[in-house]
Amino acid sequence: MDHRINQQIEFIITLDKLKNIQRRSYLISGDHTENSAEHSWHIALMAMLLAEYSNESIDLERTIRMLLVHDIVEIEAGDTYCYDDVVNQTQREEKAADQLFNMLPDDQAEMMRALWDEFESGESSESRFAAAMDRLMPLLQSYHTQGKGWKENEISKSQVLERNGPIVDGSNSLWIYAEKLIEDAAEKGWLN
Amino acid sequence: MDHRINQQIEFIITLDKLKNIQRRSYLISGDHTENSAEHSWHIALMAMLLAEYSNESIDLERTIRMLLVHDIVEIEAGDTYCYDDVVNQTQREEKAADQLFNMLPDDQAEMMRALWDEFESGESSESRFAAAMDRLMPLLQSYHTQGKGWKENEISKSQVLERNGPIVDGSNSLWIYAEKLIEDAAEKGWLN
Repeated sequence: MDHRINQQIEFIITLDKLKNIQRRSYLISGDHTENSAEHSWHIALMAMLLAEYSNESIDLERTIRMLLVHDIVEIEAGDTYCYDDVVNQTQREEKAADQLFNMLPDDQAEMMRALWDEFESGESSESRFAAAMDRLMPLLQSYHTQGKGWKENEISKSQVLERNGPIVDGSNSLWIYAEKLIEDAAEKGWLN
Repeated sequence: MDHRINQQIEFIITLDKLKNIQRRSYLISGDHTENSAEHSWHIALMAMLLAEYSNESIDLERTIRMLLVHDIVEIEAGDTYCYDDVVNQTQREEKAADQLFNMLPDDQAEMMRALWDEFESGESSESRFAAAMDRLMPLLQSYHTQGKGWKENEISKSQVLERNGPIVDGSNSLWIYAEKLIEDAAEKGWLN
């Protein structure tokens, strides 16, 4: 047991680093950006509260687990702003996943990797709903800070529509909600 | 649907405030303290990875949900340092729970309140294991920052043993692990 528990605790300690990975979305409640750890907490709870709007039936437990795990690779690969065109992001993240999850005992490394792969692939109903959460949250944050992050990065309405379009694959109802926010933000002049 | 989704989104936006509630535990990975949102993320993942050490069989999904929810009341009631003697904490938190969870539609307000009550009561195997996570994490953080938070608050070995003792109700194995850290910390002079 000693080796196993030491591997697990070592990984858990490493997770602490995700609290230092800053995203570009601003908190609604403050004037600073959020980090990927608190973001992951927020969207896991969001999934719990909005699951009823999923287009397809989902295993909520796996959805929540996926959301808790989905950003861990950023500990090694860093955060990628959702409106950046990024070369090599996938390779960087794949390498980070290999490195980080393999700190765990084999069975748990496989479990974590499977959750991350499922999220990335978008091929299950759970991953489509999880991706909708991951997009809807920054949209809410941008809207409720009067487009602060959008303005700073000169984001256009068409970029926001394109980025958030996949919400519809997870939830038609939430996409209708999101579209209204985007239209309203554009009318208010918060988008380029 | 409009009223329901508006209530849900309003609550989700309010959750953002938990990212501004600072705890007194220092990050292992930095020189600042952590907030209650990122802490909640961390211990939810910790539960996923250490569930095998629970004394009793647990419903891991409910345990994770409880951990995601357990600190939300701090948005209104503030964080209470685990080594403080606090008057009226329970009343303050009860009032906060009433206020916050009732922002949600009735069914979800009840669901959230039930999770929080279960965590607070410590009467289920899930809540005992969840409480063990909530204690073990700050212990790991204090140990791996060479007792930084303990020193600043002049915490003694007996206080740490008393505070963390309930870990044994969730997991004998993790308590054995924790006791070793505490003994070692005391030998190293990190505790008063």
